[in-house]
Amino acid sequence: MPTPVRLGGLHAVIEREGVRDEVAVEEPLEIRVDGEPLAVTMRTPGHDEELAAGFLWGEALAEGAPQVGPTPDLAGNAVEVRGPLARDPGARRFYTTSSCGVCGKGALEEVAVHAPPVPDGLLLSRALVAGLPDRLRQPGFERTGGLHATGLFTSDGRLVAVREDVGRHNAMDKVVGWALERGLVPLSEHVLCVSGRLSFELVQKAVRAGAPVLVGVGAPTSLAVSLAADRNLTLCGFARRGAMNVYTGAERLT
Amino acid sequence: MPTPVRLGGLHAVIEREGVRDEVAVEEPLEIRVDGEPLAVTMRTPGHDEELAAGFLWGEALAEGAPQVGPTPDLAGNAVEVRGPLARDPGARRFYTTSSCGVCGKGALEEVAVHAPPVPDGLLLSRALVAGLPDRLRQPGFERTGGLHATGLFTSDGRLVAVREDVGRHNAMDKVVGWALERGLVPLSEHVLCVSGRLSFELVQKAVRAGAPVLVGVGAPTSLAVSLAADRNLTLCGFARRGAMNVYTGAERLT
Repeated sequence: MPTPVRLGGLHAVIEREGVRDEVAVEEPLEIRVDGEPLAVTMRTPGHDEELAAGFLWGEALAEGAPQVGPTPDLAGNAVEVRGPLARDPGARRFYTTSSCGVCGKGALEEVAVHAPPVPDGLLLSRALVAGLPDRLRQPGFERTGGLHATGLFTSDGRLVAVREDVGRHNAMDKVVGWALERGLVPLSEHVLCVSGRLSFELVQKAVRAGAPVLVGVGAPTSLAVSLAADRNLTLCGFARRGAMNVYTGAERLT
Repeated sequence: MPTPVRLGGLHAVIEREGVRDEVAVEEPLEIRVDGEPLAVTMRTPGHDEELAAGFLWGEALAEGAPQVGPTPDLAGNAVEVRGPLARDPGARRFYTTSSCGVCGKGALEEVAVHAPPVPDGLLLSRALVAGLPDRLRQPGFERTGGLHATGLFTSDGRLVAVREDVGRHNAMDKVVGWALERGLVPLSEHVLCVSGRLSFELVQKAVRAGAPVLVGVGAPTSLAVSLAADRNLTLCGFARRGAMNVYTGAERLT
């Protein structure tokens, strides 16, 4: 029976059919608020405080940089947030009334309440944005093939933070958490870059973080495009080898 | 501003910079139990009853095939489950005690409570299993690049069901829901095949469905390998062009 052995990084060593191999580490993280469990996410260990801070920010549960630290009992896969939260997390997201049901429109309105449209102003070279995914450093992916990455770039294309995680939303949360700790949010002079597809959830996190541009290697979904248009985000997909599709906000690209 | 227009299938038509393009549809689905909201998932519309049934089964919230139908108010993005559930869904998954914290071991034990080990018995050709991903039909992916797929194959390699969705877990839930409706669970003579990576969650769903083999195009995580080993599942990754890595349960392959 293979027992993955963690080496302390993003990857664990296993033996499969006599061959030594490496896989991405996945473990649950519990986020507690004043001792009470709030959420559990399956993530790659490391930068857990950033993950919690970015998650709370993305869900509009924090109004400033959340204070996150180890739990009093020093449990390994849990972090403690000092409350109170900015709003009641028990409110069911996207849920409006029992008679209208859930709809994409409701989801857009829910995000709109907590995130103003991203301001105009930043202008970027189209070629620069299209080239960013090629400059994402992904050492964990190269070893395991099992990690997503999010990178934060300055408007002149300098990579200032990158995080890898088995969950694409976690990688984004960690980068936003990193930025929150440094007082960089809203990320009005930055570009967020992801290694995979562009879901509604990733657009939501980018908008909440105030980034004007989100570029990814993969495809966007319909609701991701709608939200990006509604919140004035420049959304670019299929960015590979210097080319990309621009779905919304092309005005920011020169 | 691009407004994605749904055509009734898995994809929506948009215009980006004057070019007509297609993207995968993503919309929220609310799963209600006897009128009470239980969960919201971002999914590609279609086969929503299967999704709800498969989700409830995977979470061990149902003991037989759940009865799922439209809501009394006929809300478009909601389905109604006739209760009661098999257990209290309010119990926080993976959470054990406040002093031990969350750990991968806890996650494995949580699944073990609700899913017996997959029995031995089925023997399959290694080449057959490695070739299954190439035989997954993915028309939605071909149009959008934004959909995951899960396929259900018989032990002689015949594709009996395939579902595409923006969420990989949804695609799996839909296939399991399809099988539940036909009395095919446990899937002891079948192989589940996914178009992407192999997370803990996907292994959990495969084990709950009683499938002896799960094969994917992408990489597994450490916890996916651990759970597969613990529950006697044959887990194969990086299956491409007839080759693959076998992480657990190689005894079933000839």
